Amino acid sequence: MPDIITSRKNEWVKFAARLSADSAFRRKEGSFLVEGARLCEDAVRSGCEVACLFYTEQALSRYARYLEKMIPAARRAFQVAPHVAQLLSETKTSQEVFCICGLAGNGAQPAGEKPIVGRCLALENVQDPGNMGTILRTAEALGLQEVIVAGQSCDVYSPKVLRASMGAVFRLPLRYEADLACLFNRLKRQGTACYAAVPRADARSILEVDFTPPSIVAVGNEGNGLRAETIEASAACVAIPMEGRAESLNASASAAILMWEMMRKGT
Amino acid sequence: MPDIITSRKNEWVKFAARLSADSAFRRKEGSFLVEGARLCEDAVRSGCEVACLFYTEQALSRYARYLEKMIPAARRAFQVAPHVAQLLSETKTSQEVFCICGLAGNGAQPAGEKPIVGRCLALENVQDPGNMGTILRTAEALGLQEVIVAGQSCDVYSPKVLRASMGAVFRLPLRYEADLACLFNRLKRQGTACYAAVPRADARSILEVDFTPPSIVAVGNEGNGLRAETIEASAACVAIPMEGRAESLNASASAAILMWEMMRKGT
Repeated sequence: MPDIITSRKNEWVKFAARLSADSAFRRKEGSFLVEGARLCEDAVRSGCEVACLFYTEQALSRYARYLEKMIPAARRAFQVAPHVAQLLSETKTSQEVFCICGLAGNGAQPAGEKPIVGRCLALENVQDPGNMGTILRTAEALGLQEVIVAGQSCDVYSPKVLRASMGAVFRLPLRYEADLACLFNRLKRQGTACYAAVPRADARSILEVDFTPPSIVAVGNEGNGLRAETIEASAACVAIPMEGRAESLNASASAAILMWEMMRKGT
Repeated sequence: MPDIITSRKNEWVKFAARLSADSAFRRKEGSFLVEGARLCEDAVRSGCEVACLFYTEQALSRYARYLEKMIPAARRAFQVAPHVAQLLSETKTSQEVFCICGLAGNGAQPAGEKPIVGRCLALENVQDPGNMGTILRTAEALGLQEVIVAGQSCDVYSPKVLRASMGAVFRLPLRYEADLACLFNRLKRQGTACYAAVPRADARSILEVDFTPPSIVAVGNEGNGLRAETIEASAACVAIPMEGRAESLNASASAAILMWEMMRKGT
């Protein structure tokens, strides 16, 4: 019989709830909370270390296939009462399966001095978790070498990003960089082609750029685009040629087309 | 002085609220409700007929630039009390500007017998309004000839689709088709190349297809993809070559890449 938690004041539950809500706490503790049977199993399969697993009695029968593999992989496993699961849930219809994962080994590292290899994407101040997750999912599917998460971008270990990424966060090589302009200046000295994606008429069409590796394309904030310093530090501005009266594409659609065009040229 | 509506039971307000909530009512009345200063102005600029405009006193000072152009274009304009605006709003922080537009001339027509010209997209059972809106926005930006909305796809005149489409719904040629497999069979007889986008290993890579017009690519439901009948009726299955463990791309990212690849080959 597993231990059963019936109180929302249980220490593990309080810890998990705070991990779900607070990105600073996630960084401090080096841990994050994952919700959903399939996403939790995905974390285990991707090599994340599971400190703690929570599930309700109903989840145990509904998601037996997932939980059978996860319970032995978790350091601790607790059955929780439905009202406890509700506290941890971020979704309308919860599957009532959660796990606390450690960032160690899978956590995004600071960009540091390590050079860029292959074709990469940089995200500066991308703030919508849905966009962030979708972009990371696309980056994994298209096989980008790594993604640099820069500036005031939203935390990739937030519940919404994890969900929208469909687990890509667990597997995609990710690095952090506070100041993307500085990183671009450093990368250029190392011979990396640094591009700024800017929806401007004077930018070069992505059709005319071959993105020979090592290369990196930066995509900016949903409303304000890239910072002027970052554009300044890039080797060239690139844009998706567009028609019609739409002023720009949605951030995740535009990133999808950019990444596709980069990777297509490598095949 | 404009007429001021202070009651949520006003007939125009009740009519507008029902248009916002009920897609069957929208079709019956041939009208839809638009929310937001910029989106309402976009509707006017795109040639939509505005039967009725609503705005609060605060909106009148905040969005004077938009409302100045819209008030003369609307058949009726009402100032409404904030609690009335709240009833009509779908967003957390409303701009308190709304208009009722007529579908006439701008409404999507049944696909009928009219042939396909150029390069088109078909959406079958796309049910998430955010995806639908983003895909229509991308279709306009990339210059697709038209979009066929098929099967049980969500209503393109719902508030969420209008918002995510950034007004593309007002301008993009759209047609409806209940049964996409039937349409594909008819189009094939007319010499249109009909493709089914299916994330399957045996599908042809979109890199190997030239999408010579007239051509159309169908994208299916977020979870279940295209119906078997529609795949059967297509000339070939096409797929975006993918790596990694992501089983598929998000519907709007995948549609963006498909449309880009179609349109790129026409340039």
